[in-house]
Amino acid sequence: MSDPKRVYNFNPGPAALPLEVLQQAQAEMLDFKGTGMSVMEISHRSKEFEGVIQTAEADLRELLGIPANYKVMFLQGGASLQFAMLPMNLRASGSSADYVVTGTWSKTAFKEAQKLGTTRAAANTEADGFKILPAKLDLDPKAAYLHFTSNETIHGVEFVNEPTPLAGVPLVCDASSDFISRPVDISKYALIYAGAQKNAGPAGVVVVIARDDMLERTPANLPVMLDYKALAASGSLHNTPPCWSIYITGLVFKWAKGLGGLEAVAKRNRAKADLVYKAIDESGGFYRGHAAPEARSVMNIPFRLPSEELEETFAKEAKSNDLIGLKGHRSVGGMRASLYNALDVKAAESLTQFMREFQKKHG
Amino acid sequence: MSDPKRVYNFNPGPAALPLEVLQQAQAEMLDFKGTGMSVMEISHRSKEFEGVIQTAEADLRELLGIPANYKVMFLQGGASLQFAMLPMNLRASGSSADYVVTGTWSKTAFKEAQKLGTTRAAANTEADGFKILPAKLDLDPKAAYLHFTSNETIHGVEFVNEPTPLAGVPLVCDASSDFISRPVDISKYALIYAGAQKNAGPAGVVVVIARDDMLERTPANLPVMLDYKALAASGSLHNTPPCWSIYITGLVFKWAKGLGGLEAVAKRNRAKADLVYKAIDESGGFYRGHAAPEARSVMNIPFRLPSEELEETFAKEAKSNDLIGLKGHRSVGGMRASLYNALDVKAAESLTQFMREFQKKHG
Repeated sequence: MSDPKRVYNFNPGPAALPLEVLQQAQAEMLDFKGTGMSVMEISHRSKEFEGVIQTAEADLRELLGIPANYKVMFLQGGASLQFAMLPMNLRASGSSADYVVTGTWSKTAFKEAQKLGTTRAAANTEADGFKILPAKLDLDPKAAYLHFTSNETIHGVEFVNEPTPLAGVPLVCDASSDFISRPVDISKYALIYAGAQKNAGPAGVVVVIARDDMLERTPANLPVMLDYKALAASGSLHNTPPCWSIYITGLVFKWAKGLGGLEAVAKRNRAKADLVYKAIDESGGFYRGHAAPEARSVMNIPFRLPSEELEETFAKEAKSNDLIGLKGHRSVGGMRASLYNALDVKAAESLTQFMREFQKKHG
Repeated sequence: MSDPKRVYNFNPGPAALPLEVLQQAQAEMLDFKGTGMSVMEISHRSKEFEGVIQTAEADLRELLGIPANYKVMFLQGGASLQFAMLPMNLRASGSSADYVVTGTWSKTAFKEAQKLGTTRAAANTEADGFKILPAKLDLDPKAAYLHFTSNETIHGVEFVNEPTPLAGVPLVCDASSDFISRPVDISKYALIYAGAQKNAGPAGVVVVIARDDMLERTPANLPVMLDYKALAASGSLHNTPPCWSIYITGLVFKWAKGLGGLEAVAKRNRAKADLVYKAIDESGGFYRGHAAPEARSVMNIPFRLPSEELEETFAKEAKSNDLIGLKGHRSVGGMRASLYNALDVKAAESLTQFMREFQKKHG
């Protein structure tokens, strides 16, 4: 078999997966661990699949240092379904929830929560073009929870430190696009959720990490597939889970441990982002980053060129250099480099070399 | 590479997939159609993934003869989330829905619907041990819809013809375990849903086929991930869909077309089921089928042996003959042979040969 073609994949999600993970999935496709079946063909209640999901959870617990009083769930519907499940479960009838709005995704979470009850914006940076982190928060001491989005995939704005809630207010985080990209102190959080398809695996599974007391808020008679308490109690096996996506996500967790854990992962991610921000900052204004310097994301770097025409050319020439997925989201325009865990430093080096050559040619 | 081991897989779901589908997925794992990326690594809005989902839908439309006034959705959460989405969307405030209860799954759907509003059992065969189809239905002429489960995976009871609703009452079906196992006249249905992980693909995606007028019932302000109208309007791409599961499901649809379409698939399925029922009926009572003869499922055949001890031995000896997944559900006990599309006739032949030898040895 000739070597398959592989490219540098800067897609914002679904995104690059580690080559080793794909190779293992490929090798095990027809016969998973001597079963004579694919991992897609075995029962979710078999001891082989129990091994898959329990190992995935154990590796994630080790990576993130998740305390024993937190449950880990592997669910379906993406972060988008969490936008609804969260208020359904955590906001008891009549109480209000606080949302920090710093980009498209936190705004969407806010709007979904509004459909289901009282919701306040503790901050909203939209008037500033979603380029900054809020200078201060207007917090409700009685809020059911305080929600924030640790990294905004579209606007490239990332919290370095999580916001501090008022005493007694649980902190809730959508970590979809910087999940397991760096160490996090889980004990500061009441609940974290993350769609896997950025740093942690393929689409089709969302990881929810919930402190035990949060599960006591679930009201009676929620449909079971929307009920954190029931889903946690079943070990994510109330119904057939997204077995393949959990399997691949587990392989990614194992791979991240092999890199040396989240300190090593974070160092590698920092190195990649530094290269790209340096190329932007040294371009004399040819490349302009979207986010304010103090809010810059390590994961997603949206940037503009002097004209839309040049941006089109950039995307086209990048593609012919096997640099893929660099077109920005239409709401911000321009380019976006997503530098998730699976990309190694060579990818960022190739991109910045291309950026410099492109500027020389067209600048 | 030596040939990987493969077994006869009678699992009830997740279940056997066609070998050709697994081989194609394996071959394309590192480079999907010259992209230099896995299908898990490309954008769900890329032209390559558009090709995946649009081809899957077109092939399904062709297989089932889906009329133009029906939408096809590929969603997450399995049939279990549909148990809730269905009444949320189709049962306007105050109206009641009718359910035909013929086994564990229709009973579960009924219970979930009860949580969300007024729900009637149009029939319930539980007192008869879920072995039969209802002789008659007690129908509400004002019902929001009439729901039935075309095949009960656990009890092995399958409708040959769908129940006839009263004029103006939409017919809704959970077809999870006999989906695309035979031709169906879609125009009789208002909505059909099916988890893929039996006949149509891996876990992680549920197919929903809804007549256009059903989408007009969705109330305002449903969370978008629970809103049929919004999900259909987005072409299943409101958020990141379960890309891998849709991809494999599309390959299975293509494979079923290659077998000759659903007439050919049904004939093959009938041949397999006939073999196993014949082995049961000719055993002189050594093997006893759970379902009444007129209600027998072509897909799932639960049966008992003279003692639990013999059932244990049967499962063990079958496994050592590479006949896998034959242990029955604990609620029925005994054995269960699931004979979904991907199994060829040889699997049923091997099983019935084993059944005869086992009886000779232990009978």
